Amino acid sequence: MATHKLLLLAGDGIGPEVMAEVKRVAAWLDQAGLASFAIEEDLVGGCAYDAHGAAISEDAMVRAKAADAVLLGAVGGPKWASVPYEARPEAGLLRLRKDLQLFANLRPAICYPALADASSLKREVVEGLDILIVRELTGGVYFGEPKTIMDLGNGQKRAIDTQVYDTYEIERIAAVAFELARTRRNKVTSSEKHNVMKSGVLWKEVVTALHERAYKDVELEHNLADSLAMQLVRWPKQYDVIVTDNLFGDILSDIAAMLTGSLGMLPSASLGAADPVTGKRAALYEPVHGSAPDIAGKGIANPIAMIGSLAMALRYSFNQGEVADRIDQAIAGVLASGKRTGDIAGPGTETIGTQDMGKAIIAEL
Amino acid sequence: MATHKLLLLAGDGIGPEVMAEVKRVAAWLDQAGLASFAIEEDLVGGCAYDAHGAAISEDAMVRAKAADAVLLGAVGGPKWASVPYEARPEAGLLRLRKDLQLFANLRPAICYPALADASSLKREVVEGLDILIVRELTGGVYFGEPKTIMDLGNGQKRAIDTQVYDTYEIERIAAVAFELARTRRNKVTSSEKHNVMKSGVLWKEVVTALHERAYKDVELEHNLADSLAMQLVRWPKQYDVIVTDNLFGDILSDIAAMLTGSLGMLPSASLGAADPVTGKRAALYEPVHGSAPDIAGKGIANPIAMIGSLAMALRYSFNQGEVADRIDQAIAGVLASGKRTGDIAGPGTETIGTQDMGKAIIAEL
Ligand SMILES: CC(C)[C@H](C(=O)O)[C@@H](O)C(=O)O
Ligand SMILES: CC(C)[C@H](C(=O)O)[C@@H](O)C(=O)O
Repeated sequence: MATHKLLLLAGDGIGPEVMAEVKRVAAWLDQAGLASFAIEEDLVGGCAYDAHGAAISEDAMVRAKAADAVLLGAVGGPKWASVPYEARPEAGLLRLRKDLQLFANLRPAICYPALADASSLKREVVEGLDILIVRELTGGVYFGEPKTIMDLGNGQKRAIDTQVYDTYEIERIAAVAFELARTRRNKVTSSEKHNVMKSGVLWKEVVTALHERAYKDVELEHNLADSLAMQLVRWPKQYDVIVTDNLFGDILSDIAAMLTGSLGMLPSASLGAADPVTGKRAALYEPVHGSAPDIAGKGIANPIAMIGSLAMALRYSFNQGEVADRIDQAIAGVLASGKRTGDIAGPGTETIGTQDMGKAIIAEL
Repeated sequence: MATHKLLLLAGDGIGPEVMAEVKRVAAWLDQAGLASFAIEEDLVGGCAYDAHGAAISEDAMVRAKAADAVLLGAVGGPKWASVPYEARPEAGLLRLRKDLQLFANLRPAICYPALADASSLKREVVEGLDILIVRELTGGVYFGEPKTIMDLGNGQKRAIDTQVYDTYEIERIAAVAFELARTRRNKVTSSEKHNVMKSGVLWKEVVTALHERAYKDVELEHNLADSLAMQLVRWPKQYDVIVTDNLFGDILSDIAAMLTGSLGMLPSASLGAADPVTGKRAALYEPVHGSAPDIAGKGIANPIAMIGSLAMALRYSFNQGEVADRIDQAIAGVLASGKRTGDIAGPGTETIGTQDMGKAIIAEL
């Protein structure tokens, strides 16, 4: 059995606590002979800044590039509110995305039936919801230049950010969306603001042309980003795969995740291009939720999204879909038994801590 | 009594139908001696393109500048999907905003108790909701240069949009937000992406400094745009006034409006700076909803947001708050009587058309 080289970057806030449960599950899989891991660990975010003065060290970058997959907990927190811009916790995550060329961010928004009542939306609006946001992750306003603040004198400054998209960047992310739609309900909704942005005009043009050329079997619709945000709130089940740019994807995927009421449950994948010879692709897996500094260190964080990130790695990076299925089933089993962390507790459920949730999932396995 | 010069730009889709009800109400107010209007009408959007080849004519721009207030219906529709970018329907609206320097867009999101069940969110989450989004409207990525598509050869193009904000632009919109918060629940939430955008860094810095200098009595908090979008879905009642840039405001205000279940009810105001001598400010009022081409011409559109826009003009431009209150009360009265247009119909209500809704409101007046 191939040994998978995993780099664990637990990060800040609840990151280390939920990552500890990934280690527990990985160790169990190893012992059970279901998967074989060679695990390294390093720092990212605020803790890396505290240790090295940078949000990720050169050494950690080298290890990330050498790994088969990176698992990341979360970065950031009020402690680092005033560190220099270049060294802020998020810079570590952004550098990983950019240097590993992780252009495809897959963010599933799934409503777990047992948790539908945790949503602020009516049960019938979210029950059974299963949408996949495909977000472009290495382009757009996140990385475009110029990105600067100029002093104009007289107490005036000017801030500039630049949204840049090239044809090939739009094409490759749209292809990912079309391919994934074929494995699901065969529908892609592409979102931009072509009515005010030139990048939206090009986005729509390129997606339409690619569809015409190679994916006519997939249903394609276009939805302006503001209108899509509205429709996600009104009736999210009309969507299957949504493809959009880096900034709109940031916002829309967070909305979609929150709709489900299952935020603490949702993992995400950030993937690079497949190597034409080996088929290998750079990959980073992380929960959709953040570092939650308010509950960090209390042993109450929900580790399911983080453990689900390991399952996603098994599925997308290691071709071990059956093992991923077993983890997902174990999670469902624990939920069905009524065991919950505080964030997803409801009437009649039993509230347990982070470690006990990890152990309960292993017991189910 | 001063006569108010109103320019009505009904626009496309359901625009003309709902604007007809504004004329009905304005005529009634005139007759009743409650307000005096001198009304002109012109074209904007797709219909202006059909007539003049531009989304707004120079003549209409001259009239808009001369008016005390502009009322706009809605622009756009599939009919104009392939007109040249510079002449697309939205260009008319964008030119009005830019040339009249309407930098402050006020978008109230109010949940009408009678309509709380029309929301996709649980009643307890939205009942009594009353938030005000203050959106910067003449800057940011909507207008920044360069904004272009370049041909790179080899079938590759590059699209560029530029987000630009100067200190004074941020300061003046933040001041509007703080002033309005003082008349409400005294809290401002400022939103940007300072963790990835330099314009977000400057935005946060300028808002914080202005708060420190002149509005320490108002509570100020900062919320990243993605996190705010999530929180709006989770528990919107935590907010009072939200201030944000042009693009985030576009999306966040649409989400907030949709939360309420009262989309067809919500007017908005776009205001310029007050003239230091006369106190007069350029102003445009329009519904939050769009042109709804799917129901245009059927006589079933909800005219309440459009009539509410007239009320908002009376309040903000004409200093006739009592008359505005009377209109708002008449609207509430009609709703209480169970009369509804189709979009807000519910169990036990009576569905009526656009014209009957206009007449019912006048009957209540
Ligand atoms: C932490 C931050 C830089 C990041 C982003 O804006 O992309 C986060 O919000 C996300 O969505 O992964
Ligand atoms: C029509 C369009 C240009 C406009 C915008 O993006 O500002 C609309 O969505 C709005 O919010 O008023």
